[in-house]
Amino acid sequence: MYAQITQFTKMLNTLSRLLDKAQKHAEANGFQLEALLNSRLAPDMLPLTNQVQMVCDTARLATSVLTGKSAPVFEDAEKTVPELKALIEKTITYVSSMKESDFSGWEERIVAPPGWSGAFLGKDYFYQHGVPNFYFHMVTAYAILRHKGVRIGKMDYIGQLPFLR
Amino acid sequence: MYAQITQFTKMLNTLSRLLDKAQKHAEANGFQLEALLNSRLAPDMLPLTNQVQMVCDTARLATSVLTGKSAPVFEDAEKTVPELKALIEKTITYVSSMKESDFSGWEERIVAPPGWSGAFLGKDYFYQHGVPNFYFHMVTAYAILRHKGVRIGKMDYIGQLPFLR
Repeated sequence: MYAQITQFTKMLNTLSRLLDKAQKHAEANGFQLEALLNSRLAPDMLPLTNQVQMVCDTARLATSVLTGKSAPVFEDAEKTVPELKALIEKTITYVSSMKESDFSGWEERIVAPPGWSGAFLGKDYFYQHGVPNFYFHMVTAYAILRHKGVRIGKMDYIGQLPFLR
Repeated sequence: MYAQITQFTKMLNTLSRLLDKAQKHAEANGFQLEALLNSRLAPDMLPLTNQVQMVCDTARLATSVLTGKSAPVFEDAEKTVPELKALIEKTITYVSSMKESDFSGWEERIVAPPGWSGAFLGKDYFYQHGVPNFYFHMVTAYAILRHKGVRIGKMDYIGQLPFLR
C-alpha cells in the first residue's frame, strides 16, 4: 500500500540522509556528533536519538498493526549514527517486506495496538495516530538539526519527487 | 476521502487549539503574543505565523489539486491569533465542502499544481509532497511553541482518538 510502504520508506530513507548530513556537519565543525544526538528542542522533549527511534518504531508498529503480522523487536539501544542508520535500514526492510495483499481490508479492520487499552478502526488508527505520530518525530528530528545549525533545507526533507514531465 | 478531509480537518482543528494555548500562555506570563508569532527555530526558518499559513495553504492546495476544484485565494496577511484562527476556519470550511466523489480517481490522475513546472500522479503528489509538507509546517508550529515554553504536550498534538471500546 502506497500510504504505508511508499510513504514510510521514502521518509525513512530521507531520515538516514539527514543523519549523514549531521555527521558531515559535526566533522566539518570539529565537534562530537553525540552532542547533536543528545540535543533537544525543549528540556522536556526527547533528544534526537529518541526521535529517530520513534520514527522507526511508529512505522514498524503501524505496519504490524495494520497487517496483523509480527514485527521485529527493536531494543532502542542505539547510541551512534551508524547504529541509528542500521535501525532505519532494519525498519525499511521490515516495512518493504509487506505485499499489498498483507494490508487487505486495513481501513475497516478493528485494531488494538499492543499495550494500548483501546481498539479502533484501522483507518482511524492510521490517519489519526500512525501518520501524525510518524511525522511528529520525523519533523522534530529535522527541526533539532536545523535548530543546531546543520546545513539542511526543506528539499532535503521533501526529497526527490517523481515528476512525469 | 479520509486521507484528505478527515486528516486535514482534524489537524487544522488541533492547530487552532494550539494557538488558543499560546494565547493563554502569553496572557498568563504577561508578554506580547506577537513575540511568539514571530518566533523561529532557526534564523533561516519561517516564524510561527508563516508556519500556520503554510499548513493552511498546503491543505487548501492539495484539496484543490486532487479534486480539480477551484480554491479560495488566501492573502497570507494574518498578523494576530484571531486572524490566524479565522484562516484555519476558512481552510476547514473549504476542505470540508468536498464530497467523496470530488476525489474520485485522485490517485491515478495526473496533476500539476499551479505555478509548478512539473506534473505527477495524484498519489505521488499527495503522499510525497502534500502530506509531508502539511505535517512539516504543523509540527514546526508545534515545535516553536514547545521551544518557547508554551505548556503543551504530545496529546495536544495527537488529539482525541475515536476508540471503539
